[in-house]
This record gives sequence, C-alpha cells and structure tokens, in this order.
Amino acid sequence: MSFAPLHNDTFLRACLRQATEHTPIWLMRQAGRYLPEYRATRAKAGSFMGLATNTDYATEVTLQPLERFPLDAAILFSDILTVPDAMGLGLSFALGEGPKFARHVRDEAAVNALAVPDMDKLRYVFDAVTSIRKALNGRVPLIGFSGSPWTLACYMVEGGGSDDYRAVKTLMYSRPDLMHRILAINADAVALYLNTQIEAGAQAVMVFDSWGGVLADGNFQDFSLAYTRRVLDQLKKEHDGVRIPHIVFTKGGGLWLEDMNTLPCDVLGLDWTVNLSKARRMVGGDVGGPGKALQGNLDPNVLFASPEQIQTEAIRVLDSFGLPHTDRATTGPTHIFNLGHGISQFTPPESVAALVEAVHGHSKRMRQQA
Amino acid sequence: MSFAPLHNDTFLRACLRQATEHTPIWLMRQAGRYLPEYRATRAKAGSFMGLATNTDYATEVTLQPLERFPLDAAILFSDILTVPDAMGLGLSFALGEGPKFARHVRDEAAVNALAVPDMDKLRYVFDAVTSIRKALNGRVPLIGFSGSPWTLACYMVEGGGSDDYRAVKTLMYSRPDLMHRILAINADAVALYLNTQIEAGAQAVMVFDSWGGVLADGNFQDFSLAYTRRVLDQLKKEHDGVRIPHIVFTKGGGLWLEDMNTLPCDVLGLDWTVNLSKARRMVGGDVGGPGKALQGNLDPNVLFASPEQIQTEAIRVLDSFGLPHTDRATTGPTHIFNLGHGISQFTPPESVAALVEAVHGHSKRMRQQA
Repeated sequence: MSFAPLHNDTFLRACLRQATEHTPIWLMRQAGRYLPEYRATRAKAGSFMGLATNTDYATEVTLQPLERFPLDAAILFSDILTVPDAMGLGLSFALGEGPKFARHVRDEAAVNALAVPDMDKLRYVFDAVTSIRKALNGRVPLIGFSGSPWTLACYMVEGGGSDDYRAVKTLMYSRPDLMHRILAINADAVALYLNTQIEAGAQAVMVFDSWGGVLADGNFQDFSLAYTRRVLDQLKKEHDGVRIPHIVFTKGGGLWLEDMNTLPCDVLGLDWTVNLSKARRMVGGDVGGPGKALQGNLDPNVLFASPEQIQTEAIRVLDSFGLPHTDRATTGPTHIFNLGHGISQFTPPESVAALVEAVHGHSKRMRQQA
Repeated sequence: MSFAPLHNDTFLRACLRQATEHTPIWLMRQAGRYLPEYRATRAKAGSFMGLATNTDYATEVTLQPLERFPLDAAILFSDILTVPDAMGLGLSFALGEGPKFARHVRDEAAVNALAVPDMDKLRYVFDAVTSIRKALNGRVPLIGFSGSPWTLACYMVEGGGSDDYRAVKTLMYSRPDLMHRILAINADAVALYLNTQIEAGAQAVMVFDSWGGVLADGNFQDFSLAYTRRVLDQLKKEHDGVRIPHIVFTKGGGLWLEDMNTLPCDVLGLDWTVNLSKARRMVGGDVGGPGKALQGNLDPNVLFASPEQIQTEAIRVLDSFGLPHTDRATTGPTHIFNLGHGISQFTPPESVAALVEAVHGHSKRMRQQA
C-alpha cells in the first residue's frame, strides 16, 4: 500500500524524542460522544459496534475532531475490547452503558477454549485503518491501539466493567496458573493485532493498560507489565522503512514508572496524578541517551472550566514538563500533550478548541523564549 | 469519665513507633456486611442510619468482629459522612447502595449556608464512642474517625458517590475560592468532631481521605493535604495524660508519600499499590528519630482465595515491611497490618480468621528469628 506523504510529523517526531516546533497534542477518545456530529453518525449506525465495524462510519468519526481542531494526530475509532470479541466472547454496548461480554472466562474449561483469534475476524479494524489513513491524506499520523493483556483479562473474567475487580482478582489470587495462561494468549493476540494494524497503515501504536493501576505492587509487575512487555517484544519496530513508535499507558501506574522505564517502548502515557517534572527526571532520559517520551497528563475535568482557566491549567502542565529538547541534531526529552484519561462525553467542544490553542501557543513561546 | 485499663495496647504502641510482641492487625470496615450477625442487627435497625444513630446497635456491631477474631483494635461503627449530615445536607443510604445527600453544595448560596455544625447534632456518635469504650472493657483500644475535608467535599458537591468527580472538580477548577471555603469549614468541623470523639473515649483517631487519590498532582497538595493538615493542627495530642495517635489514610495517595510525611500525624495508611519496603525507607524513620508508623496494605480481594493463599499473601506483606523495631527502650519503624481498603461485603468470615492467625503467627516468628 502507498499513502500520501505526511505533512505534520510533529507527533511522530516527539514520540521518537526528536525536536519539534511545538508540543503536539491529541486527546484520548477525541472522536467521541462530546461531539454532536459523532452522536449523529452513531445514531445512523444504530449501535457502537455497528459504528466500529463499518469502515465508512469509522473513517467519518475518526476525522471529525480534526475538522474542528488542529490536533497533531488521529486515533483509529474502535474499542479496546475487539480482540476478546474476536475470541468469541460476544461484545456489546447498551446505549449509555459500558461494554458487556455475552460469555465470561472464569474456569479452566473457559480458559482452555481461548486462543489467539483469526485476524480475519478483525478485518473490519484493519480495513478501517487503511481507509482512515487514506482519508487523512497525510494531514497527521494515525495511531492504532489495543487494550493491554491485563486490561482485556479484567473484562473477560468480569464479563464487563467492575468497581472492585473481585472476579478477576479472585482468579488471579486463587488460580494464578489460569490467569497466566489467559494473559499469554492475550499478549500474543494483541501483538498480532497491532502488527496487522501497522501493516494496514497505523503509524504508531498504543497499548491501553486502563486497569493496571488496580493491581497490588508486585502483582502489577507479574500480571500486567510482564505481558505488556511480551506484546512489545513481538511488535514491528518499523514498516516500509519508517519507525513505528510504541506507546504504553497505564492508568494509575505512576508509582511504577521506574519499572515501566524498562519496557521496550518509545512513549509512556501518564495520568494527572503524576508530577511531569519528576517523571521527566526519572524516565525522560538525557540528550543523546536513551529515555522515554512522555505523554499526558491534564485532568479531563479541567475542560469544564472557563477558556481562561483551561489555558492556565494547560500552561501549568507544559511548564511542569519544562522546555522539551530543541536540538534537531540529536534526541532528548520530549512531551506529547494529552489528557490523563479519555475526554468526558459531557465536555463542551469549545473547551477543546481553547485547550489546543493554549498548548500550541504556549509551547511555541516556550521554545522562542529559550 | 473513667474506663477500664487497657489489656492489649499493641495497636497503640505500634502507632507510636514503639516495639510490640507481634504486628497488630485490624481491618477497615471490620464491623460490616460480611458478618451475618451484622446483617441481623442491621435488619433490626431498619436502615444504615438507624443502626449508626442507635447507641446500643452501634455498640453491638462494633464488638461483633472482636467476638470472632483476635483483632488488636476496634473502630467506631459509623460513617465518614456524619459531619455533612449534621450540616443539614440530609444523608441517607438506600439498601445496597452508596450514600446520598438530599441537598448538594454547588453554588455560592449553598456554600454561604455552610457552617461548622453544632456538635449536639452528632451526640449519637459521641454516645456510641463512650458506650463502645465501656463495652470493650479494656480489651483493645477504640479508634474514632472522620472523612477528610476533601472527601467530605466530594460527597457534598456531588450529592453522593461519583465515578468521574465531574461536579466537584468543575467547582474546584472554575471556583477555587468556593472550594477553599467549603474545605476550611469542613476542616474545622472535622477537627472539632474528632476532638469530641477523643473526649468521649476514642483512643486513636483516623482521617479517611478516601478520594484524595482522584486529584491531580498539585491539586492534591492544595485541596486535600492542606486541609488534612488544618485538621491535624487542631487535634488533641493527648487526653487524660495519654497520647492519642492520629492516623491519615489517602486511598491512591502513594505518589505523594513524601508530602504526607510532612503531616503532623503518627501513622500513614497505605493501599496495596504501595511497596511497603520503599515506603518504610521513605517515611518510616530511623531508630530514635522522627518517622511515621505505616498501616496497611493487603488487597481486600486476597480474602477470596484459599486460607493457604491468604497466609502466603499476608506473609508477603509482613516481609515487605520487614522486621519492625524491637527495642523497648526507644522508638523506630513499626507496622500495623490492615487491608488497603475496606473489607468487601462478600468476604467469607473464615478468610478473616485465616488472615489474623497468619499475621499474628508470622509476625511473632519474625521477631523470634531476629
């Protein structure tokens, strides 16, 4: 496949710790319910899965936020749970509710029945990736993604969302052997899934470890981090001669930043509880040396304040990271602006406009004043 | 008031970083729904508030877990939200659901109407404290408690529980002046409330900052920690010539342990995401020097595993802290065993028996082998 040349490579450069003219910004769940045009497309599609499995609709909603805001990246419109759905667990979304599986995985028989799914069952995702990449026409890069092995396992065992993770942790504490088998299958499936997204046109890939933060110290390393590593170890590092950055985001993982620094990935995502200045010192690396780019970490609830207050908070996040690396001749610490979690469906779209403008404006001024 | 002399002071000694024969253990929400005898008393009382406001019932349920398990402390049966209820917000609990306020606090008029409540409205709590202390008859010490100013504010603004804290954070980001006024009133109310519990017979007091962990770095320090400090600054350090230990627990606060170390309290509670060995190095202090006792931090979901697995995980927590200070002549690092959050209502009571036995047994062996 050949695609149009990339006009704005700011995001990809920042992922690889290369200097940029401004701090790139994109938002987790930027194509979503806070946009009236998204709600209109979803109404036409009838259901969330109807939207996600239709190439034209998925392309349409992925591009919607870019029509409104000068964001520096697009992210595939899909769900983190497509892989267990392809394993046969039966994913659905009731309107206004979270994901639900028709079957859950809680005993040895159910674990024995699990296998890496045929990627043909996820063809709709790869078709969407290619379609979106074409529709972007080189405007900004396209990010592909998946849930992490642990996060997928949480939903597979619980059968949906949970507020106490009782079922998945009961299995983990009482049958760690079964949990490790689930996670190994998930890891291999996620790696294959992301590599196929890369072949289809994804220019960066992100692993969402949305529920890694609910684990106890020690268990996080054994049951989440180890399997994220197993995914990363299998991922294509480049495609068609171009580097494909790998991003890992563990919500609530700030305490384990030093552990995460050992992952073979390019970027670490951070939620709002993390001090960006400290995180940069811990894992941002030195000029010319190894290190991780950092992505994050504004509290999504800031977007319910006034445009002036949004600007103030955005500047606070940028200043907390400090001046990114600016020398084009080498690599060094870089920052990709994002929220610390997905944008709320109740967010006024004007708030996003104010945020993007503040991030672009202030991050350019930081570089000029340096 | 005069009460029976204390037979088991292990918990109080550990709070003050004094040597003990074993590591004391109690469990957050130890008097609760996982016990059939609790459910029977609650059925008689008709409602949660009916239970909490009746001195006899509150005394009965507080002592129930002690009849079953050799726990080293009792904790007042009450709720963290009694103070805003006394402010006139109208607290209620529907069966099987979380707390709900009849009125919420979201605008300037509602904030202006707030004041430190008359402690007479909380007389049922102080009566329960005295009654429980008498009924304990010196068996183990009695812990009093309150929600933290920030945690109370979350419920007061949201009007109940929340999964995104949108209302309280919208107020915080857009009207920080109003939020600071709520928090100042809450802090002064909580301090008065805890001091009155101490006068009524509480032998230690604990501030539950259940929702501090949802704040962004920077905001935690300004909106939660600062007001917990304002509470602590006003608390009685002793009563009738006996030291009253002060405990602070911020769920999800592991990233801010060094900030919390500056609080004028004796004990810091930790959830299961925190590495106890690292926490001890950071805030446990040296022998003879200042430091905090540490309380925690087993994942409550461990209690759904087998007795052998519970024992293994309990030993892992004890060994992670390491051998506590053992010299009776001076103070040093100590550990109080607890869960990292309240016990689940679905916990089999036999699991608690296995846990208490494992903690007492292994912690004695640690000291003997030293």
